[in-house]
Amino acid sequence: MRPNKENIEREMRSLQDEICIEIEKLDGKGKFREDQWDRKEGGGGRTRILEGETIEKGGVNFSAVYGPTPKKILNALHLEECDFFATGVSIVLHPRHPLIPIIHMNVRYFEMSNGSYWFGGGIDLTPHYVNMKEARQFHKQLQEICDRHDPTFYQRFKPWADEYFYLPHRGENRGVGGIFFDRLDEESEELGKGQLLDFVLDLGRQFVRLYRPLVSNNRDLPITQDQKDWQYHRRGRYVEFNLVWDKGTKFGLDTGGRTESILMSLPPRAAWSYDHEVKEGGPEEHTLNILQLGKFPLNH
Amino acid sequence: MRPNKENIEREMRSLQDEICIEIEKLDGKGKFREDQWDRKEGGGGRTRILEGETIEKGGVNFSAVYGPTPKKILNALHLEECDFFATGVSIVLHPRHPLIPIIHMNVRYFEMSNGSYWFGGGIDLTPHYVNMKEARQFHKQLQEICDRHDPTFYQRFKPWADEYFYLPHRGENRGVGGIFFDRLDEESEELGKGQLLDFVLDLGRQFVRLYRPLVSNNRDLPITQDQKDWQYHRRGRYVEFNLVWDKGTKFGLDTGGRTESILMSLPPRAAWSYDHEVKEGGPEEHTLNILQLGKFPLNH
Repeated sequence: MRPNKENIEREMRSLQDEICIEIEKLDGKGKFREDQWDRKEGGGGRTRILEGETIEKGGVNFSAVYGPTPKKILNALHLEECDFFATGVSIVLHPRHPLIPIIHMNVRYFEMSNGSYWFGGGIDLTPHYVNMKEARQFHKQLQEICDRHDPTFYQRFKPWADEYFYLPHRGENRGVGGIFFDRLDEESEELGKGQLLDFVLDLGRQFVRLYRPLVSNNRDLPITQDQKDWQYHRRGRYVEFNLVWDKGTKFGLDTGGRTESILMSLPPRAAWSYDHEVKEGGPEEHTLNILQLGKFPLNH
Repeated sequence: MRPNKENIEREMRSLQDEICIEIEKLDGKGKFREDQWDRKEGGGGRTRILEGETIEKGGVNFSAVYGPTPKKILNALHLEECDFFATGVSIVLHPRHPLIPIIHMNVRYFEMSNGSYWFGGGIDLTPHYVNMKEARQFHKQLQEICDRHDPTFYQRFKPWADEYFYLPHRGENRGVGGIFFDRLDEESEELGKGQLLDFVLDLGRQFVRLYRPLVSNNRDLPITQDQKDWQYHRRGRYVEFNLVWDKGTKFGLDTGGRTESILMSLPPRAAWSYDHEVKEGGPEEHTLNILQLGKFPLNH
């Protein structure tokens, strides 16, 4: 059966439920609090926030919103006046441990009253310290998920992530990337609408499985003050990406979205020091060298 | 004598020198380090940073840059292709003590090869805790400076600051405002070019005199952990303003300015917590109530 927006909204809502249960298990201690909110022009969402033991600050947003399409989107998409419907799940987890990476995922569905629709989303990893083995394993798992659905996805969506999660003013990628995709529909793809939905749901359901080894490998390692300082510094870059470059954040703030739900992605603490220098040959320099390549090197 | 761009550049450079000497005296311990930098397309600057005792992180930038006008400015100003020259001084001071406000000032001069020129600038105060008496005293001093040059300035530039230093996504002003002005030239004003330069230099030279009482009134007061937490939280808002809304920051990052000089305005440490709540009737709530008015209430 070809899914309609009610089916997709229901699936997204369940996805949030499943992921939250698994994240609580992974954290081991923290519990999500939930805020339900309504959007004045139509729809609303459920924002869930956890302040846990392993996860210092984590947010899992579900939303399903609709109404007249904001002028800013109409202009960006060169569309005539029409109504829109959008639903999706967004996640950002900021771990306490500097050796556990920050992780982000988003899956979304858009539909316009003129009949067009598309899926979009992505997942990317932002290690404070790049661990090549872990990063490549993450990419390998992503490729496996993609390959289950379409053999062209990974090779198209991996470079898209390298390009999207990039800070031009720093000449740095945000992290080791992952996959990013947008405007997928049955016109542009070999897959039908139901199969595209299966892909984004599969990706969503694999989220905690992708993150779990990065947590369990590192959570018990000792932490130094240098590592904490570097973590706050790298979180500063995360803030810069989200507030200056991220299209989703900009779009949300520009169109009067719920600020606390949009900015749940910001870290609990961050730091900026002028012209921060790193020790030659140290792990911080290694991380910078990788981020400054402009794309994550695979070779796996 | 009508000042030309060489005169104005020299004055701006001296202004930076004078202000840095006075800030070091005010801090009592910290010394500025200086980075000189060149701009590939023409010109350069001197960035000075202090990490002191009273001032946790302070930056004073001087720059004088020129060359073909970046496309983004041409479009914004509806101009044909031409060369530009710009010089100015920018300051942001982040104090350690939560009862001392963050302060920002900028004075700038722009000249285009088509013959047009203008002055711009502003100064504004961002208290972590609004102290009405101090804020009104700050405004009174600003009015006195303005009145020495033109009786219309303060009444025009105070509301301009209320409007400019505003976070739409929070429904909050950044702080208690001050003055903001742009595109001042002898066509738009009663004053000639030399008199306009005198105004911005007078404002610049009064900078430390404006800030000094805010430091000396508060530097020896005891500090609580609640105050520190609130300070980090308010600094998070400062980051949001500068990265999301500030036109100078956006323009700098968009046109390939020197990132470390532009982002010296960011605080040494900041925090974000989801849906931060304040105690009813406490000083944090009082501050929020003032910031949410949309303009600083004078009544002096």
